[in-house]
Amino acid sequence: MIEKLIEKIKATQAPIVVGLDPMLEMIPGKIKRAAFEGHGETLEGAAEAIWQFNKGIVDAVADLVPAVKPQIAMYEQFGLPGLAAFHKTVQYCKQKGLIVIGDIKRGDIGSTSAAYAAGHIGKVTVGSHVFEPFGEDFITVNPYFGIDGVKPFVEVCKENDKGLFLLVKTSNPSSGEFQDRIIDGRPLYEHIGEKVAEWGADCMSGEYSNIGAVVGATYPEMGRVLRKLMPNTFILVPGYGAQGGKGEDLAPFFHKDGLGAIVNSSRGIIAAYKQEAYKKYGEDGYGEAARCAVLAMKEDLRCALAAL
Amino acid sequence: MIEKLIEKIKATQAPIVVGLDPMLEMIPGKIKRAAFEGHGETLEGAAEAIWQFNKGIVDAVADLVPAVKPQIAMYEQFGLPGLAAFHKTVQYCKQKGLIVIGDIKRGDIGSTSAAYAAGHIGKVTVGSHVFEPFGEDFITVNPYFGIDGVKPFVEVCKENDKGLFLLVKTSNPSSGEFQDRIIDGRPLYEHIGEKVAEWGADCMSGEYSNIGAVVGATYPEMGRVLRKLMPNTFILVPGYGAQGGKGEDLAPFFHKDGLGAIVNSSRGIIAAYKQEAYKKYGEDGYGEAARCAVLAMKEDLRCALAAL
Repeated sequence: MIEKLIEKIKATQAPIVVGLDPMLEMIPGKIKRAAFEGHGETLEGAAEAIWQFNKGIVDAVADLVPAVKPQIAMYEQFGLPGLAAFHKTVQYCKQKGLIVIGDIKRGDIGSTSAAYAAGHIGKVTVGSHVFEPFGEDFITVNPYFGIDGVKPFVEVCKENDKGLFLLVKTSNPSSGEFQDRIIDGRPLYEHIGEKVAEWGADCMSGEYSNIGAVVGATYPEMGRVLRKLMPNTFILVPGYGAQGGKGEDLAPFFHKDGLGAIVNSSRGIIAAYKQEAYKKYGEDGYGEAARCAVLAMKEDLRCALAAL
Repeated sequence: MIEKLIEKIKATQAPIVVGLDPMLEMIPGKIKRAAFEGHGETLEGAAEAIWQFNKGIVDAVADLVPAVKPQIAMYEQFGLPGLAAFHKTVQYCKQKGLIVIGDIKRGDIGSTSAAYAAGHIGKVTVGSHVFEPFGEDFITVNPYFGIDGVKPFVEVCKENDKGLFLLVKTSNPSSGEFQDRIIDGRPLYEHIGEKVAEWGADCMSGEYSNIGAVVGATYPEMGRVLRKLMPNTFILVPGYGAQGGKGEDLAPFFHKDGLGAIVNSSRGIIAAYKQEAYKKYGEDGYGEAARCAVLAMKEDLRCALAAL
């Protein structure tokens, strides 16, 4: 699966993933009104608004980027209808030829991780029939349980040519509270990064492993160290834009050939029409604004990577 | 919420939570056949079988225990129909007067944790209407992101009188891979335990905090240390039974008054009819077998706590 992602990155010249993390506040009034007219001010109405909003974003950017990353929490908060909108979004993006990274950050003891893996990137058997319940291509996974909580995900990746991004250093301000603590002279995230590289070694697909890592754009110096520590690990970089990561911070996450990482932007793209720079598009032009924001991000990244 | 849980533990004399983690293999053939007849060998059929199975267990044990803990992964693996069965199970258990601990182990950056918290233990607003999408009483949370990933959950607990159990030391064999690493002379799980106690200090409800901890029954010596380190933190103890934790291992998790912890058993109760000791009940008597297994566990715990 990582080979497919890299192929698409090369084809689009954009190591960019669009985070589909819709919040009701950022959805244009017209879309919300139509959804609420059809379904009432209900969870179903909210889910319909999210789905229509997503469709507009995806239609506007699908030819520009290799991948999208729906954050499942933004859907799960609206209960079952919200999760149905998540599922519909995953299916739609796949139809559009996009690679889908389910940002689910699951992780548990072995038997439980196996169930999450089956549901999201694998298959389940009911009687004599086999189903792919959610069908993402990649998912994010929390490695706090150690190898026996991660292994079932890795196994399912091998069986189904899917991929993972394991949390190594998260983008949030307090991520250092535990992740930066020093163990044997080095921070915990380095130990985890080393393990991710080790676990991924027997899951290679071309030059990179299907087992990738999450490292926040907000910590470029740590990104530099982790890039060297995990040479064959693809890095998913959240935290660009709204969370504070800038284009110039991104070079350390990449190899000299401009590969090795993919940068996520969520609000900065999907709610671009609310920014001063894209205000002229108005609510109705939220898709076009998102498209312009992707192009601006692509240029920002191109400049950052030209210096490599 | 923790006060309600303790009240119910006192009333039932059973610091026991029944883990509702159904797997298709453990569901009696008759239930599966009926579900598949009505819905086909589909995700809906699997979800119906799970729901009917759960209902039988809950009806059989509801008067004996204070709480249940559905593991959401076992439902999520069957996609949207599976999650509908999770929701139905939560609602049914609450109607039966049981406290529901959603074993969801979510955790993310702040805005994302806020969405999970709203969906599972809080409320979401759609237009002028307010909904409680999943409606658990407690949820389990992964603290790997540090305080800003945990705080939104704590805030929602305060607003809605709900509770959390934060992962401190998990029950699985490889939990030590990261959790036991030594930082400033003490293992990571102790540092996390200390933080859990600190974060919970302003969320007290009676003698205990609404912010509890998860510590595996499989690590009784660590449980002893953590019990002292977090005196006002209620401990949810998984790993008893099928995972290897024994009654005699449980005393360290409790205070001398027999309170301070609640022990989970999943397979050992819900699939009891498959064990030699309860075989006589047969598939049809799976509920009764579960009831006997709860009574046996209660006795096992009574003996263990008598020595306190």
